[in-house]
Amino acid sequence: MIQVAVLGFGTVGSGVVEVLDQNAERVKKAVPEGVAVKYIVDIREFPGNPYEKLLVRDFALVENDPDVQIVVETIGGATIAYDFTKRALLAGKSVVTSNKELVATKGCELLAIAREKKVHYLFEAAVGGGIPVIRPLVQCLAGNNILSICGILNGTTNYILTKMINEALSFDEALKQAQLNGYAEQDPTADVEGHDACRKISILSSLAYGHYVAPELIATEGIRKVSLSDVAFAASAGYAVKLLGRTVRDGNQAYVFVAPHLVDRACPIARVDDVFNAIMIEGDAVGQTMFYGRGAGKLPTASAVVGDIIDVAEHKEKPRRMGWQDAVDGFVKPMDTFVCRRYARIAEKDKKRSEEIFGAVRWLSAGAPAEAAFLTGPLSEREFAEKWMAASIAPLGTLRVL
Amino acid sequence: MIQVAVLGFGTVGSGVVEVLDQNAERVKKAVPEGVAVKYIVDIREFPGNPYEKLLVRDFALVENDPDVQIVVETIGGATIAYDFTKRALLAGKSVVTSNKELVATKGCELLAIAREKKVHYLFEAAVGGGIPVIRPLVQCLAGNNILSICGILNGTTNYILTKMINEALSFDEALKQAQLNGYAEQDPTADVEGHDACRKISILSSLAYGHYVAPELIATEGIRKVSLSDVAFAASAGYAVKLLGRTVRDGNQAYVFVAPHLVDRACPIARVDDVFNAIMIEGDAVGQTMFYGRGAGKLPTASAVVGDIIDVAEHKEKPRRMGWQDAVDGFVKPMDTFVCRRYARIAEKDKKRSEEIFGAVRWLSAGAPAEAAFLTGPLSEREFAEKWMAASIAPLGTLRVL
Repeated sequence: MIQVAVLGFGTVGSGVVEVLDQNAERVKKAVPEGVAVKYIVDIREFPGNPYEKLLVRDFALVENDPDVQIVVETIGGATIAYDFTKRALLAGKSVVTSNKELVATKGCELLAIAREKKVHYLFEAAVGGGIPVIRPLVQCLAGNNILSICGILNGTTNYILTKMINEALSFDEALKQAQLNGYAEQDPTADVEGHDACRKISILSSLAYGHYVAPELIATEGIRKVSLSDVAFAASAGYAVKLLGRTVRDGNQAYVFVAPHLVDRACPIARVDDVFNAIMIEGDAVGQTMFYGRGAGKLPTASAVVGDIIDVAEHKEKPRRMGWQDAVDGFVKPMDTFVCRRYARIAEKDKKRSEEIFGAVRWLSAGAPAEAAFLTGPLSEREFAEKWMAASIAPLGTLRVL
Repeated sequence: MIQVAVLGFGTVGSGVVEVLDQNAERVKKAVPEGVAVKYIVDIREFPGNPYEKLLVRDFALVENDPDVQIVVETIGGATIAYDFTKRALLAGKSVVTSNKELVATKGCELLAIAREKKVHYLFEAAVGGGIPVIRPLVQCLAGNNILSICGILNGTTNYILTKMINEALSFDEALKQAQLNGYAEQDPTADVEGHDACRKISILSSLAYGHYVAPELIATEGIRKVSLSDVAFAASAGYAVKLLGRTVRDGNQAYVFVAPHLVDRACPIARVDDVFNAIMIEGDAVGQTMFYGRGAGKLPTASAVVGDIIDVAEHKEKPRRMGWQDAVDGFVKPMDTFVCRRYARIAEKDKKRSEEIFGAVRWLSAGAPAEAAFLTGPLSEREFAEKWMAASIAPLGTLRVL
């Protein structure tokens, strides 16, 4: 029997315990000796919970128990989770996690310890919740040079944008609904400002390129500035507004960023709604592939964690090549040279002046009164900024076009 | 250096040689010792081909060369490919293939030999071309009981249906275009009659359930009978006509079948067009996930084969649990109890009689003149057949609704 300790008995942790228990027969098909939870570590009490007898408060019990081979970290954050993960790896235990913050910020160090100790540090659940994406990227596409990744990586913001698009709710109203339905935290900053998506594209980029792409190098913009007027202008031209985490390879460097985009409805990613996530990966051999599913939630995330637990159990003797090396200086390109089409919303009175500066743009209809919006051809970030300076206009809003 | 022999220098075989050569740096990141093609086995001559010096005619050279650790079988069919695969496995070499016919018909035997010889028999490329789907299903979703799989598994028929839907071409015209563009064989039977999709859902079902689901047990219907009138009626109600390979778990049994369906345009699978494939997998923990990409073609298929080669190279000492056991008698349920909504096209004169028998159906518009079409509520296959008998009407066409 493979003995597991689960750290943190919140949504994901309890989901993992449930799936391992309820799907024990299924798990045995992959791991004939079976997988059992020996400890659940949490400082809270759960009186009457069916798994109450497994609860302990002291992580040292896990750390010092040679029977525990796999530690599941679902605490979240990068403080206690960091300490426990490091100690577990140093104690020669494999660690499986859903904690994107910890993986994105401390991944280099933790992966290096895992390599040295010849144990696994796996985190399929950290990106895309239950969607299999890390293993496909690292294993199935291992023969490809990755040209780009583009994903709807955060369910909360996608839910908010879907409500704005489909029901014409304002950002604030949509956020309130997301909070009422449990899709957004009371403090929604990490989701709404794009930090969560930033951590996930940091992880995907690091895996794709094989060396660390730190979150602080990733230009990150959330959705607070997206207005109902933007959504309506976009819709009139066949676009949906989506928050995307992207990386685009450019020679020996890459752009990596998070920002709301106009996405053509002909693109499959434009039609990923509500709390669903989708990640499009483009390789030089495979072309474009897409992975779609529930990016969060108790059982979907637990599904990914349990898949990792099974992988560890099956490959105890040979830890997986599923990580990255230290960062390469200068690899992440500054955004000012990034070229794409642009969307801009302006006061109607500035239409003529905009045309003088931007030339033959495509005007959109159906936005707010006294406003106008247009799409440009391909422009670099710098050219775009310079044109506004030249025009002496402050746009009401701008977005990139995918 | 890991030495590879490629059997068959056609589209896929030459793609594999090219990807291994051109992406050698990338492959080395995963397999530091490198992967090299030592032989290409084909009876044809390729004068002037850059890889000409690797060509040999005699498979025995490969079989008897202890340096060759991995054999890539891209011959296709189940005769010579079967012989060579068996001999390679018996000689203790791992085999990687894109050959769905061989895997679907002889998989049990070949997987058993591979297990006995402690080598790999991998076939990621056999389903969905370059789309990572087999590894995600078997590894990432290993903690799930698979409830259903539903896929657009054949690019040729999806191309034909897309032309019928978007350009109102007849089946024959669309088939001709597919042939002109190289998407359909001169003898299109295997694609058009659903045999290719049948082999692929056989493989996916066998993997999902862990025991063999033989193609001959899979009720298989192609797209020859789908008319432009069906496509138009379906479109008028927001449906696309798609050829689906499906399995639906039902207790200790499962339905497994291939047939054209009406698919609601709200479902992501309805919007998978042209030669693209998509596979939706539903697990009890993860919910619905979808995998999308190019289901065929030289480089996409080569991408999947090279991913498998790298996997073998990384796990020489421990072959993967990626296969199935012998078939379980009575596991595949006869279709007569399968319940779903139905679409029927009839002569307009039969409208009244249909309503008497089928009750409150939903009438569709926009099909051919003098014809009518309707959607029923959920009915079993048997009930549906009995109602036509009772009505004494022969429908002009019927389809299932997803």
